[in-house]
Amino acid sequence: MRRVAIVGTGQVAVRKQYDRGLRELGVVVVKQALGETDKRRVEALYLSNMLSDELQAQKHLAALVADEAGLAGIEAIQVRAATAAGAAALRVAHLAVASGAVDLALAVGVEKMSDQVPTAALAKALDARSEVPDGKTLLSQNALLMALYLQEYGLPPDALAPFSVNAHRNAQHNPHAMFRDRQFTAEQVAQSRLIYPPLRLLDCSPVSDGAAAVLLAPLSDAQQYTSYPVEIIASSATTDRFRMSDRPNPLRLEAAIDSTQKALRQADIKLQDVDFFELHDAFSIMACLLLEASGFAVPGQGWELAANDEIGINGSIPIATMGGLKARGHPIGATALYQSCEIVQQLTGKAGQNQLDEPRVAMLQSVGGAGTTILTHLFSGAS
Amino acid sequence: MRRVAIVGTGQVAVRKQYDRGLRELGVVVVKQALGETDKRRVEALYLSNMLSDELQAQKHLAALVADEAGLAGIEAIQVRAATAAGAAALRVAHLAVASGAVDLALAVGVEKMSDQVPTAALAKALDARSEVPDGKTLLSQNALLMALYLQEYGLPPDALAPFSVNAHRNAQHNPHAMFRDRQFTAEQVAQSRLIYPPLRLLDCSPVSDGAAAVLLAPLSDAQQYTSYPVEIIASSATTDRFRMSDRPNPLRLEAAIDSTQKALRQADIKLQDVDFFELHDAFSIMACLLLEASGFAVPGQGWELAANDEIGINGSIPIATMGGLKARGHPIGATALYQSCEIVQQLTGKAGQNQLDEPRVAMLQSVGGAGTTILTHLFSGAS
Repeated sequence: MRRVAIVGTGQVAVRKQYDRGLRELGVVVVKQALGETDKRRVEALYLSNMLSDELQAQKHLAALVADEAGLAGIEAIQVRAATAAGAAALRVAHLAVASGAVDLALAVGVEKMSDQVPTAALAKALDARSEVPDGKTLLSQNALLMALYLQEYGLPPDALAPFSVNAHRNAQHNPHAMFRDRQFTAEQVAQSRLIYPPLRLLDCSPVSDGAAAVLLAPLSDAQQYTSYPVEIIASSATTDRFRMSDRPNPLRLEAAIDSTQKALRQADIKLQDVDFFELHDAFSIMACLLLEASGFAVPGQGWELAANDEIGINGSIPIATMGGLKARGHPIGATALYQSCEIVQQLTGKAGQNQLDEPRVAMLQSVGGAGTTILTHLFSGAS
Repeated sequence: MRRVAIVGTGQVAVRKQYDRGLRELGVVVVKQALGETDKRRVEALYLSNMLSDELQAQKHLAALVADEAGLAGIEAIQVRAATAAGAAALRVAHLAVASGAVDLALAVGVEKMSDQVPTAALAKALDARSEVPDGKTLLSQNALLMALYLQEYGLPPDALAPFSVNAHRNAQHNPHAMFRDRQFTAEQVAQSRLIYPPLRLLDCSPVSDGAAAVLLAPLSDAQQYTSYPVEIIASSATTDRFRMSDRPNPLRLEAAIDSTQKALRQADIKLQDVDFFELHDAFSIMACLLLEASGFAVPGQGWELAANDEIGINGSIPIATMGGLKARGHPIGATALYQSCEIVQQLTGKAGQNQLDEPRVAMLQSVGGAGTTILTHLFSGAS
């Protein structure tokens, strides 16, 4: 396999995008990711999106965005893995360049969730036959995980509130974040509106519109495109039993355990080599369980990393360094590509006031459904 | 890039599958494709489907089918390119194995179109902003192409009827075909019910339910799995301008021209080396235009290949050798995988009464939308 690097990034500020359509969002980030690169060199565009079938009546989105961006002619394919779609597009773009089939590829994520209430469409990440008819949604499944966690470890309802505090604190200095001016104390998080008990409003990522993209090239060509390439040193995808009810212990995210280990083996590094972790904090409980599954905390102690601020910029394992899904926002299909852009910012010293102290290795982890699909990517600042 | 071979195939008979759900169809073909292979060796499943969001309320289908097939744990990702989804899944599976990232991958296509009228969902392959609001559908766009073609070359309305005659003739000996007992003369095709003028019922592929799968491995390992591997010697994807109205000449399928040439270059062969051509005969006009775009006929003469039966089993360039989309059926996301299975049958001497005379090289071409996305694969009987 060829070594592959990110050589360009693009992201729009996450907000309700009343004035721009899905395709316009895609075009903006494609242009940003290309920068000075001649667009005629681009060979492929792998697009991620979850909800356009229902919300924009569009099922052929990769080719549409390619055309609107002036790239008609190139390969254009959409990749999906429910709420982990962005990471799946990154993985396929990585495979295309690593294989040698493609020399310059875009991974582009777009999502516009505010056009309609997306709850029912989001629930299609669950089993339409045996989960959705029982009233389950992504919210209810995450609420169940949170309730199980609090009960299993005898914790108070506000045990996970520090995750949101950290995310909002980090978002304030990210110009692309949805919530830049909303700081909260743990008390405020714990007193916010109950959404689906025990989940409160501030335990949940927001409905978001946004787009983000990365440009991938062989590492050996990277200097043609940028002075600041970031290498993708591992890409892994795994699944668990589809339905949470089929898992012996739903609090143990088997797919995240496996995916992390696969990625570490690929990169030939240890977990201790990971300097920060952009994880899937769509809900605080998911951030907590991912910290445990990946090995940063033993089961039942993930919440302590937040309580002790070990997840902060100056902590032992920073997460959501630019606001995370919680406060940067979670435009589903675009999310992992936002995270990829932010990882590039951190690894190249361009993260502004949230800059970590010379990080060398980053981990990105994305979740499809309620723990069913996990993708893990590892990144290294190329020197 | 590693050389990649198909080492297993699975297909269910195309019909209205009132008694089986989408997932059951997927499970059946996964098991067939695996055959005697230990399923614990499978590392990834790339799934294609177009319509499950609307028709089965399911958006996380790859992981669901993996779990139902007893493969929970593996990588599972869905791939889309509107009506060319099956070929896109084949391409991603090929990239995964060619890259070295995956040693044994399934490409699985599933589609169940008879649960609801699929016309509106199918139209989402077009532009939701500027085509669909004008009343355009995939049927109307293909009708427009047919009308333009007949007018441009001064042909009678029944000029394309022989395409359907050939497809139905070939389907009669394919146990997986939807229409095995329906033979038609050109006159009958030309007198069938008008659907969208000038398209008649027998110019159109049927609404279909089905599933098909192929198992891919490095060519160097192929003998571990089968005595009859078939190598994928090229895989290419291209796009045209998204909207037909933006193309200078809609009868010239630029993406098919480009995709064919790219594939031939990859395989380092000439078009004359292709012994048969499984093409996207969702409508007879599309079969005709693809024959012209790929170079088997000059513009305006594709119809003559059908009229002279050069497309028949004993012709110079056989197409739809097992019935094609027209008569085997066109369960969208599964179609290119059916075609892949049929190509394996032909190249390994297992095509029964439709067996071609020792074919060595096959071409597969798939169309997303009305000529927007094209994928081309070339196959060679590995010896």
